[in-house]
Amino acid sequence: MDKNKGMQESALFVMGGVEASHDGMQYGVPKKFRKKKADNLNILELARDVRAGSRVQLSKAITLIESSNSAHKAQAQELLQELLPHTGNSVRIGITGVPGAGKSSFIEAFGTMLCEMGKKVAVLAIDPSSSLSGGSILGDKTRMEELVKKPNAFVRPSPSAGTLGGVHKKTRETMLVCEAAGYDVILIETVGVGQSETYVRGMVDFFLLLVLTGAGDELQGMKKGIMELADAIVVHKADGDNVRLAKKTVSEYKQILHFLQPATPGWMSTAMPVSSWEKKGLDKVWDTIGEFRQTVEANNYWSIRRQNQTRDWFQSMITDHLIDAFYGDPNRKEQVQLLERQILNGQLTVTQGVDRLFSDEQSQK
Amino acid sequence: MDKNKGMQESALFVMGGVEASHDGMQYGVPKKFRKKKADNLNILELARDVRAGSRVQLSKAITLIESSNSAHKAQAQELLQELLPHTGNSVRIGITGVPGAGKSSFIEAFGTMLCEMGKKVAVLAIDPSSSLSGGSILGDKTRMEELVKKPNAFVRPSPSAGTLGGVHKKTRETMLVCEAAGYDVILIETVGVGQSETYVRGMVDFFLLLVLTGAGDELQGMKKGIMELADAIVVHKADGDNVRLAKKTVSEYKQILHFLQPATPGWMSTAMPVSSWEKKGLDKVWDTIGEFRQTVEANNYWSIRRQNQTRDWFQSMITDHLIDAFYGDPNRKEQVQLLERQILNGQLTVTQGVDRLFSDEQSQK
Repeated sequence: MDKNKGMQESALFVMGGVEASHDGMQYGVPKKFRKKKADNLNILELARDVRAGSRVQLSKAITLIESSNSAHKAQAQELLQELLPHTGNSVRIGITGVPGAGKSSFIEAFGTMLCEMGKKVAVLAIDPSSSLSGGSILGDKTRMEELVKKPNAFVRPSPSAGTLGGVHKKTRETMLVCEAAGYDVILIETVGVGQSETYVRGMVDFFLLLVLTGAGDELQGMKKGIMELADAIVVHKADGDNVRLAKKTVSEYKQILHFLQPATPGWMSTAMPVSSWEKKGLDKVWDTIGEFRQTVEANNYWSIRRQNQTRDWFQSMITDHLIDAFYGDPNRKEQVQLLERQILNGQLTVTQGVDRLFSDEQSQK
Repeated sequence: MDKNKGMQESALFVMGGVEASHDGMQYGVPKKFRKKKADNLNILELARDVRAGSRVQLSKAITLIESSNSAHKAQAQELLQELLPHTGNSVRIGITGVPGAGKSSFIEAFGTMLCEMGKKVAVLAIDPSSSLSGGSILGDKTRMEELVKKPNAFVRPSPSAGTLGGVHKKTRETMLVCEAAGYDVILIETVGVGQSETYVRGMVDFFLLLVLTGAGDELQGMKKGIMELADAIVVHKADGDNVRLAKKTVSEYKQILHFLQPATPGWMSTAMPVSSWEKKGLDKVWDTIGEFRQTVEANNYWSIRRQNQTRDWFQSMITDHLIDAFYGDPNRKEQVQLLERQILNGQLTVTQGVDRLFSDEQSQK
């Protein structure tokens, strides 16, 4: 394999040549600037710079992690192994919401408040626009414009190209890199497509659901099971004429939560009104997360959950690998579809379909 | 492989030698009676007898389906393929419940009522006791004693030995055989362990959840997400002093259901009081299932769901096959556990663990 060719084609080395902002604009940099050689990348140096708090180097590290180039993959793992002992010291918060709930404005206001409290805040988000434009436009100052100016903030939109069910395949690893870079709070936004909420729930300590006022109507459009993932529900846009209705909605949600299984053992999920516009209730969200942490550290579930999450991640990566390897054969998909049709037509039993698939595999070997 | 040896060791041919009851007692038959030869089994004859309504031959067919012997497996598939054109004409009903809700007495009363209405009713259940005793004791006249006497009923407890997450691996296929035997209503009971409710939901048209009075307290012990699987909730034991409380509980559940996503698109899940003891409300359950069928056939989801279920079944069998083949190597489990420990100790990244697992696999080839 021509190693240099692979390097030149990737977007990875953009960061070495241009002064990149930390908000993901590097995706828009034209190919002609992508000139740096692989040997310029010293993993130990990069790890040191990330830990020292350089946002430019952190961006570079994440770009390396997200690269699909196989040479980068090995380097990324080397980097991660280097950083691993320095991870785990943040509060990992997942944020989802019904359409129109205002996730971005909440993250902007909440993250800004945390920065002003002296916290280092990293925001990881999937940019749904990037698959269309080919580049990330989250960073173009239309979203989170206040937050990105904060020296303690790091906002990283990832292109949706590398996503799996609505979450970037590398979000877990990106989170670890941010932790090694000293970020105290990691906010992971889900785009709400596919299994994204379940995936994000599987990598965070605390999961927040943003809703609007008028629970009854809204719940009709809410994803199945999503309320049972939430450690807290924020009734958002609780401002102006909406305040009274928001309070009513909060008590409705509290009542429903009472009937549901808690998302976290030992913690009674709760609901609260928030206005990101008027900056009201944001402190209450942070206090709730603090109480949550205290409760869940006391019953030891904080670390148990993280261990379970890592174990599940490993298991699901093994399964993914097996499935990918199986469907890696270009004819496989077609073969499966053909068998599926025969099964649906009643010509074959499901077991016969599976047998045929794997007996063919044996004979091809 | 010594074909005859495999045959003699299996429990399959019990049915040929003894006059078996249709309620699963054959599991208790001593080995000395297991004498019949493989060539005595004529699949076309068996298929014909099943379709003609012989319960003894139906039992025999199901024993063949459930057999783990590889020679039986091929015969079972031959039988299924033969029966396939005659399947699909039943209402498939899944039944689950909170512990103590009285699933057996409900199925007994509900099934008996349906038999008296002229329906042919098959009950498929996992017998949780059989893994201890080595034989099924569900059929020993302590459960469903009225129902098993009905000529239109077929009660089949399967030993829990062959279960996967609480459902027998062959329940879907057993259901198809019962349909070919002309059963109009198939009741599938779940034992409520593992993923059993999700599995059963994935093979039935209508899913019923049995609960007791006093929703608030009870819900604390209810499995997460289970209410969102239910097309109807039966508040059971609504008899005697319990009637008033049952009515209150019904309205509480209706309120919660209003807030949740429906289990079936286009159908508003409902709740109703039932007393199996006083035989009250059972007709209402059957009427509800009738309304459900009308609604869901009108919006075409009845057949769409069945197609999706078959497709999902095929896909999950492919995945299961890949995972089984992978862990078929006796050292694999140990190797995975070792890597898992290294990952949890922070010595390896998850990706490195997976890479190591599969690079070892490559080098061993």
